[in-house]
Amino acid sequence: MSDAARARDTVSFDASCPIPASRYDAIVLGHGSGGRLSRELLETVFLPALGQGPELAQEDQAVVPLPTSGRLAITTDSFVVSPLVFPGGDIGSLSIHGTVNDLAVGGARPLYITASFILEEGLSTALLRRLVESMRRACDAVPVRLVAGDTKVVDRGKADGVFITTTGVGVVPDGVHLSATLARPGDRVVVSGPLGDHGIAILASRQGIELETALESDSAALHGLARAVLDASTEVRCMRDPTRGGLSSALNEIAAASRVGISLRESDIPLRPEVRGACELLGLDPLYVACEGRLVAIVGADDAGRVLAAMQGHPLGRDAAVIGRVTAERPGIVSLKSVSGGERVVALLSGEQLPRIC
Amino acid sequence: MSDAARARDTVSFDASCPIPASRYDAIVLGHGSGGRLSRELLETVFLPALGQGPELAQEDQAVVPLPTSGRLAITTDSFVVSPLVFPGGDIGSLSIHGTVNDLAVGGARPLYITASFILEEGLSTALLRRLVESMRRACDAVPVRLVAGDTKVVDRGKADGVFITTTGVGVVPDGVHLSATLARPGDRVVVSGPLGDHGIAILASRQGIELETALESDSAALHGLARAVLDASTEVRCMRDPTRGGLSSALNEIAAASRVGISLRESDIPLRPEVRGACELLGLDPLYVACEGRLVAIVGADDAGRVLAAMQGHPLGRDAAVIGRVTAERPGIVSLKSVSGGERVVALLSGEQLPRIC
Repeated sequence: MSDAARARDTVSFDASCPIPASRYDAIVLGHGSGGRLSRELLETVFLPALGQGPELAQEDQAVVPLPTSGRLAITTDSFVVSPLVFPGGDIGSLSIHGTVNDLAVGGARPLYITASFILEEGLSTALLRRLVESMRRACDAVPVRLVAGDTKVVDRGKADGVFITTTGVGVVPDGVHLSATLARPGDRVVVSGPLGDHGIAILASRQGIELETALESDSAALHGLARAVLDASTEVRCMRDPTRGGLSSALNEIAAASRVGISLRESDIPLRPEVRGACELLGLDPLYVACEGRLVAIVGADDAGRVLAAMQGHPLGRDAAVIGRVTAERPGIVSLKSVSGGERVVALLSGEQLPRIC
Repeated sequence: MSDAARARDTVSFDASCPIPASRYDAIVLGHGSGGRLSRELLETVFLPALGQGPELAQEDQAVVPLPTSGRLAITTDSFVVSPLVFPGGDIGSLSIHGTVNDLAVGGARPLYITASFILEEGLSTALLRRLVESMRRACDAVPVRLVAGDTKVVDRGKADGVFITTTGVGVVPDGVHLSATLARPGDRVVVSGPLGDHGIAILASRQGIELETALESDSAALHGLARAVLDASTEVRCMRDPTRGGLSSALNEIAAASRVGISLRESDIPLRPEVRGACELLGLDPLYVACEGRLVAIVGADDAGRVLAAMQGHPLGRDAAVIGRVTAERPGIVSLKSVSGGERVVALLSGEQLPRIC
């Protein structure tokens, strides 16, 4: 980007004119007015926490340079996780990781992100600042540029603290074509680490369940790991981050879209003992429990070793494993060979196993 | 866009595999699970209402062609309006208009839009379908392509029916540079029509106030009107749609960013009699009441007539008027010459005049 282009960039965070220091410990409806209090919230909470100057708030839209090649990737997600702060993360960092990951699994380099906040009247201003600082750190680590935002306030009892919606824009390099429709019989299924840490950490935190060890969410930005996988092989068919609905949903989607079967070996699936224990205790199937920092890749058989090594060489993929293969038999069906030798269908999750985990 | 490029496009609406007809009249937590019920909601409500096939749901991100020139414009907004359906619109159409307008006032052509839904357990499925159909019609009318979406469900009492967050991506043509920093003394302020219809229509609808006539929201997509303005003059400094905080917030932002004064003449400001009447009755100042389909432009004096004619020649600008001028005196201050001859400062809105109007 040239300096001239940089100088013309604008960014956008919806509010109005300059006013100093917050007089409020908690959010009031006036913070959503578009008037003086909106401006105050922006100037005393959002801009300092984001490390931004007032120019972030001058226009109704961000204007940024076009990437010079490739295609645009666009994705959006709302985050309603409860509790707002949990072991290993919070709704702020999660809202950045989740959207960065939806770009990354498409092979896109994350460029820009927007964040829109729905605040409940009464939310602690200090907590909001903490969450926004957490978003900033998550953005800086990628890096991805937060270019636009919005804040609405709803009356007490009409939301649950704060909901955050992020939208990511990235660029898919020429030559990269990943799709759930591209899995072929013989391909291998590679996962970057143990399943279910995020879902169980949230559940334990919400229900006050004491786990034997301090389990943390796996919430992390996967763009670097995804890049390492794509650098290691040109035979990557598609990637997914198994969030809501867990590994089961991700693989069922791929099996359906590619009209193939997918056969997993239970003994090969990495699982922390505390997640296994919590699942047994609570009657949960770890294949349905959400991760927020794991990558699943469908890869041509000849390249599975290379992709596995690439994952294991990355800090977020040390416990990666090949856990199954794509088959021509039983198209649309995901099945699991259990440790005891039996085989069962891993259907889509029915009902709601763990609400509000993201 | 070439056919080859088109064939490679992907779009994204977060969920999982194929299942028929909805068995639910109301949203349940399982509709946010990422499993079978998420898929069912997508297949029985979102995709039919959007007129889309299941390919909208195959990937975690949309992949679309890069514009060939210009700069990217990006904007986001959450919509929490209450009631969900109001005279002249609903939260669905409003969520498209609002984001299209934030692109349009930056001189951008809207290209892509994303929509993320936070649903409250118990929301009527029929109402949700109606709102999504309304979004589709609003998108088709622009046209702008809805390329990605997400749905979360929160427990009863943790939201208020539905909140929608939309993000727009557009392209600003080379040569177009609009900014709140560019107003200069002598420029004129042109508004595209009467103020406050949206805010008063919402308030009347929410409070059950009977107005003498059937006042409707002005909610509309302003990209065509904005285009007409930019085609009529190269001396357009900036444009705004005066939403939350009304004309006051829009002009105070510009006065502060450009370090100029803005002087309005009350007698020139278009206002419907029923809006004037409701404001007098309720003690509201129409300069603070939101519009969702009005454009304010700051234009070089020599071109003000041309811009006014361009607005008046467009269906959404028939009642356009020149309402004031930019001054070197009192930088940062917006003032109003009243009908009775006095002059007063139009400060930023303090507190919350009309909560949840967008």
